[in-house]
Amino acid sequence: MTNFTFKNPTKIIFGKNTISSISAEIPSGKRILVTFGGGSVKSNGVYDQVISALKGFTYFEFWGIEANPDISTLRKAISLGKGKNCDFVLAVGGGSVIDGSKLIASGILYDGDAWDIVMKRDWTANKSLPLASVLTLPATGSEMNAGAVISYREKKEKFAFYSQYPVFSVLDPETTFTLPAHQVACGLADTFIHVMEQYLTTTGQSPLMDRWAEGILQTVIEIAPQIKHNQQNYDAMASFMLSATMALNGFVSMGVSQDWATHMIGHELTALHGLTHGHTLTIVLPGTMWIMREEKGDKILQYGKRIWNIEGENREETIRKIIDRTEEFFRSLGLKTKLSENGAGIETINEIERRFADRKVKFGENRSVDSSVARKILEQVL
Amino acid sequence: MTNFTFKNPTKIIFGKNTISSISAEIPSGKRILVTFGGGSVKSNGVYDQVISALKGFTYFEFWGIEANPDISTLRKAISLGKGKNCDFVLAVGGGSVIDGSKLIASGILYDGDAWDIVMKRDWTANKSLPLASVLTLPATGSEMNAGAVISYREKKEKFAFYSQYPVFSVLDPETTFTLPAHQVACGLADTFIHVMEQYLTTTGQSPLMDRWAEGILQTVIEIAPQIKHNQQNYDAMASFMLSATMALNGFVSMGVSQDWATHMIGHELTALHGLTHGHTLTIVLPGTMWIMREEKGDKILQYGKRIWNIEGENREETIRKIIDRTEEFFRSLGLKTKLSENGAGIETINEIERRFADRKVKFGENRSVDSSVARKILEQVL
Repeated sequence: MTNFTFKNPTKIIFGKNTISSISAEIPSGKRILVTFGGGSVKSNGVYDQVISALKGFTYFEFWGIEANPDISTLRKAISLGKGKNCDFVLAVGGGSVIDGSKLIASGILYDGDAWDIVMKRDWTANKSLPLASVLTLPATGSEMNAGAVISYREKKEKFAFYSQYPVFSVLDPETTFTLPAHQVACGLADTFIHVMEQYLTTTGQSPLMDRWAEGILQTVIEIAPQIKHNQQNYDAMASFMLSATMALNGFVSMGVSQDWATHMIGHELTALHGLTHGHTLTIVLPGTMWIMREEKGDKILQYGKRIWNIEGENREETIRKIIDRTEEFFRSLGLKTKLSENGAGIETINEIERRFADRKVKFGENRSVDSSVARKILEQVL
Repeated sequence: MTNFTFKNPTKIIFGKNTISSISAEIPSGKRILVTFGGGSVKSNGVYDQVISALKGFTYFEFWGIEANPDISTLRKAISLGKGKNCDFVLAVGGGSVIDGSKLIASGILYDGDAWDIVMKRDWTANKSLPLASVLTLPATGSEMNAGAVISYREKKEKFAFYSQYPVFSVLDPETTFTLPAHQVACGLADTFIHVMEQYLTTTGQSPLMDRWAEGILQTVIEIAPQIKHNQQNYDAMASFMLSATMALNGFVSMGVSQDWATHMIGHELTALHGLTHGHTLTIVLPGTMWIMREEKGDKILQYGKRIWNIEGENREETIRKIIDRTEEFFRSLGLKTKLSENGAGIETINEIERRFADRKVKFGENRSVDSSVARKILEQVL
């Protein structure tokens, strides 16, 4: 096990009818910028609950943070927050709203253009207003981590940066009952693959972290058909929400190496084709697993045995079966796992290879995924 | 899943040679009360590392916090801390030193007798100085939770109360290399049974929490023989340390009910016979499992199947096998699992029954363990 530091200060308020608790969590006297996505919270009752809880507070609403939050939208929110002297940000929505709000909370206290904050990659160089969230779409884990991913559509770019942890996040599973089925499928895939990025590395680093990572994978596999059958199944949606949060809050990555090559390639697919984040991962991961099977083979075999009960004499054959089973699971969610099924082709591969070569990036646990390896991974899933 | 709130603000600094990091974690200018146990830290190098890290700070040493920290000892430490105007407490030791230091940190700011704080059961009624720890004995989880258990030997009493979370805790697995084998065995048992108290309840409350609880049990079972073979096995001791901390920091108890009847009975065995805490649990748990098999049977069967691969047609027989296998594991650690092997007998059972009846207590998930059920549990393990 490698040395590590762990601290996650976010308070989670989880369960039915918990949105009203925000009134007790936000210090009185705060001038709150409340940030929203496209408006689905108005039809599912979340908006009314939030507004009711904010009675007595001074607040200003900002609407329209899109999936893969765009710098141009966030600049407008920052401008509003500065103009109204806001000193607290409450994000109401999914990972995109929360990610965007992390930049907003920092940008309000920053004199220059907020994109500078992203490109420095490290928010800690700046100050930030306190931020909290009411989560409505389990997927990214942003409600309990310090990361955020921001897009710059004009440049077709998408970058991650490190920000602050939310002070608190309210997770009411009932807010997910009316989500579009595709969003739920992408959220389940995102949860699964967040875990894989922290798990599919060198074996034997931490037996406990392996078990906990496998525990999330097993739970997602167990609840996925229940959710497909009935998205109003409270216990299944609660398990989904808890799993998504626990998949990317540092709880399964103590003392172990991480990978994230699949994510880095996936971000480019979103930037170039606007594909939903979780969906890009189901396309890329099977390619990463196969092309990186030299490095990751032992862990793939552990994963196959413990999660899918697949074992075999022939190493390559067994690895192939395990990857196929994984892809089959993604397809059972209703997601397509090939580039060609999602409007991408050889030009996309060329462009991603070119970008990675330009940026001279090397991704993955051992920094062995460069532009040419990324090309092989994408060709594998064409 | 039931509604819950989760927040654990403790920073964990984990790994080799991390004790020196305390100098960067404690705010400069603090007047530190450094608390120790019996002196083993002087022979294993921990004391020297701590003192070296405290260079430049004003600090005062308090020695002699015993296993199952006694109120009379803690009163002396509080008196020293008050006299020296200390405003920070650094506990260096195992769970007893940290538990005791939680009361010290609160008692220094309290005008009355510190036992009042324990009997109120809730520290939050009082203030507390900030507290941090350097852990040397993995077992209780006190380094990352808000609980503490304090003894009053004169009265042969032992009670838990809720205190504050440590600001930070340093976990260097190498500090455990020279622990007495019996302490290591008790620590492994304590870790295992902390999990069981949060897991052996109604089934189906949270599939993820079940998996995580099982993950700790599996890890303890996997590393126990490695540790018995070689207590200087860094990775095994690191997994032990991580498992012990994760077993009682709230990470496996989100949205699920808990039990703790075994602990409540175990505390009485310590109070009456001075038995090491972890050891009392290995005696009591098999009795609790058998006597409470009506309530806990479904979960015992899940535990048996997933952890020990034990299944069978006959419910009672299978439960018996699972309990026997659990007891066998405890005995493999070198611990004795019967009252009569540990100097306790029918008088002890009488006294515990009398105490519970006097206090009119009811323990367990469903508050169904009263004095007469506790008697049956203890008779089962006579």
